[in-house]
Amino acid sequence: MPTFQTVRGMRDLLAEDAETLNFVISKARETAKLYGYREVITPVVEPYELLSAKSGEDIRSRMFTFKDLGNRTVALRPEFTSSIARLATTALKNEPKPLRTLSIGSVYRYDEPQRGRYREFFQSDFEIIGASSPEADAEIILLTDRLMKAVGLRNYVFKLGHVGVIRAILSQENVDEKTQNAILQRMDKKEFDEAFKLVKSEECLSTLRGSLELKSDNVFETVEKIQSHVEGYCKAVESAEELKTILKLVTEGGCPIGTVEPAFARGLEYYTGMIFEVYIPELDIALGGGGRYDRLIEVFGGEPTPATGVAHGLDRIALAMQTQKIAPNAKPEKRAIVVPVKEELSGEALRISQVLREAGIPTEFEVMGRKMAKALEDADRRKFDFAVIVGERELKQGAVTVRDLAKREQSVVEIARIAEKIKS
Amino acid sequence: MPTFQTVRGMRDLLAEDAETLNFVISKARETAKLYGYREVITPVVEPYELLSAKSGEDIRSRMFTFKDLGNRTVALRPEFTSSIARLATTALKNEPKPLRTLSIGSVYRYDEPQRGRYREFFQSDFEIIGASSPEADAEIILLTDRLMKAVGLRNYVFKLGHVGVIRAILSQENVDEKTQNAILQRMDKKEFDEAFKLVKSEECLSTLRGSLELKSDNVFETVEKIQSHVEGYCKAVESAEELKTILKLVTEGGCPIGTVEPAFARGLEYYTGMIFEVYIPELDIALGGGGRYDRLIEVFGGEPTPATGVAHGLDRIALAMQTQKIAPNAKPEKRAIVVPVKEELSGEALRISQVLREAGIPTEFEVMGRKMAKALEDADRRKFDFAVIVGERELKQGAVTVRDLAKREQSVVEIARIAEKIKS
Repeated sequence: MPTFQTVRGMRDLLAEDAETLNFVISKARETAKLYGYREVITPVVEPYELLSAKSGEDIRSRMFTFKDLGNRTVALRPEFTSSIARLATTALKNEPKPLRTLSIGSVYRYDEPQRGRYREFFQSDFEIIGASSPEADAEIILLTDRLMKAVGLRNYVFKLGHVGVIRAILSQENVDEKTQNAILQRMDKKEFDEAFKLVKSEECLSTLRGSLELKSDNVFETVEKIQSHVEGYCKAVESAEELKTILKLVTEGGCPIGTVEPAFARGLEYYTGMIFEVYIPELDIALGGGGRYDRLIEVFGGEPTPATGVAHGLDRIALAMQTQKIAPNAKPEKRAIVVPVKEELSGEALRISQVLREAGIPTEFEVMGRKMAKALEDADRRKFDFAVIVGERELKQGAVTVRDLAKREQSVVEIARIAEKIKS
Repeated sequence: MPTFQTVRGMRDLLAEDAETLNFVISKARETAKLYGYREVITPVVEPYELLSAKSGEDIRSRMFTFKDLGNRTVALRPEFTSSIARLATTALKNEPKPLRTLSIGSVYRYDEPQRGRYREFFQSDFEIIGASSPEADAEIILLTDRLMKAVGLRNYVFKLGHVGVIRAILSQENVDEKTQNAILQRMDKKEFDEAFKLVKSEECLSTLRGSLELKSDNVFETVEKIQSHVEGYCKAVESAEELKTILKLVTEGGCPIGTVEPAFARGLEYYTGMIFEVYIPELDIALGGGGRYDRLIEVFGGEPTPATGVAHGLDRIALAMQTQKIAPNAKPEKRAIVVPVKEELSGEALRISQVLREAGIPTEFEVMGRKMAKALEDADRRKFDFAVIVGERELKQGAVTVRDLAKREQSVVEIARIAEKIKS
């Protein structure tokens, strides 16, 4: 039989990579705890209808969709927000608002595999449901800032926008929501000419085109330019005002906003307000992004409910750490290997291993049945700190030989004192 | 649009359930660290061929199998061992032996949903690859014992067996491996009559039938009965001898072996030696199980390599904890909510929230824009310990009002001292 490989686009995370990803996950959990978000675990497999309801054509066409044995059309989740919206309209419907949730796990999209882009990837997803204030939006950005800081990333910057500005202009010109989504999707891909073909009104068109030119080095200046540019579109002015408030809150909170982009859009259809992404200069893929989606909960059968959230690309953050040469700050612990001098002492030696583990010392047992010299050589090569040698003579006195592998010294130590000896 | 539900057989784990599952996961990771197992993360989606190679017909027919957009036949993993065997024959081929791996994640089987049995469930999977000794088998059982103890379970017992005994009898009578698998699978379902129909030799049949009667209250007696019962089948005697050694090692290690079962079999086809499961009296589903599989690695294209391992049903362990009324021993931490007296103070209040979080205090920010009285009432209902009230007058002196919600007392506290005040 041939050797097997992973499915194209899927990959294994071996020891160091898995450790880094788990470190990022632990920091996401820590952030959630500090900000009051409670974790929920939703299934990887969800109804196709749920996942496709508001994801946007782009993601819909790249989902892993199939029929289960009961002939249900299901799919692997491409993101978490739909599942959380499902919860918010069912099991968590009557929870006091705001509802703050955390989800951590794998999501699936049939993308062309490339650096930082796999068909299975990992996200931490934070959502606040039931709060419409700019403070809620600011919190989502600030906790993302906190996560970036907690994993040790440097020079990351946020890109901020507000789809409400463009949606308001289009709405005022009676462009229907479906066409709005199509326009935003093209704008997300920077296909502005394609996007603007869908706009009929000349005035609207010139306002949109003009908005592309509004960037300034100073983010507050940009927001003010947007405000005056959209004068006459009163909902757009309100959106720009909201963007300014959020920008002020997060900037005061110490969060590095690199750019405010008037024509910024994101792939998912459900955004209605503030949107953002975070980057490091070394990578051109977003490490996280999100925004406000005030219409999604009602689409899923709930009461109209404002909501805002973010998804962090955990394996991309891990990649960013590797790019910036940041190692998870694990303090190295002393590791021991227990080797019986002969097979008959295995039982005793196993028991001694357990004593060490109960004392919190990572301890391997020599299960290969190798001769002492070989076992010690292997322990040395694998960088153990101590070998605990269990021999008959010492055992009779309730003791073993503890060998410091780095110093190449050994001494006879009472069983009750081995842990102490190793830790000291 | 109607409200959505989870796909049949899948479920959501809400706050307490998610917390318990995460607690079990943290104990599995702790166990792995203490025993020297390193975590690897393999994909949920694997080639169908890989997953079906040695799973057994029973599991094969219940896999979530489908074609991806590249027309590859893939499936959701029903267990971890195949993925680890893939790694052992590819990326980890040249790692020093023994190779000890941990995997944690969700697995998928299309089973009839019932209590403790879902179509998506969670496992921690420990494997030792490259060690043939009974000490390796004992380690797998002992670390399972350690996990049961670490989560706080009481009265759990192990059931122990050795498929090598039955395989040896059948092999000596020239029963081919495929038929052996069919017989073991039926024995696993306690369909002994069905199983034994596949055996032609009268002598073999009477040995097998006789073996069903060998149980004794004393597990060592049972093993000895097995040993003398299979006399004449020399490989079976060896297997029984090995079982005895393992039994001795784990019993000396303090592990509660409830029964040794001569006719014990497990659903997966790949087992060749010791097998075991662990139960609590209150539930009739195994909380974990595993065994030795010395032939699997070569099936996957590797060198012949002995291996042994275990999978723990993490959500079943969580269910067992709930059944025995064991709560994850989380120490409750003081939680604070920060409320600005008026909207203009939001920026300051957000900054104060961040100061508290940096000091490690779980802190929510009042994002609902509620009036003070309402916000405090809500904080009380949601059992916050402290409300931090940010008002203009106190701010001018670099201070805020800290209200102890349980004691209904409040005082003005310098911003630099809020964390200290809350923690004390």
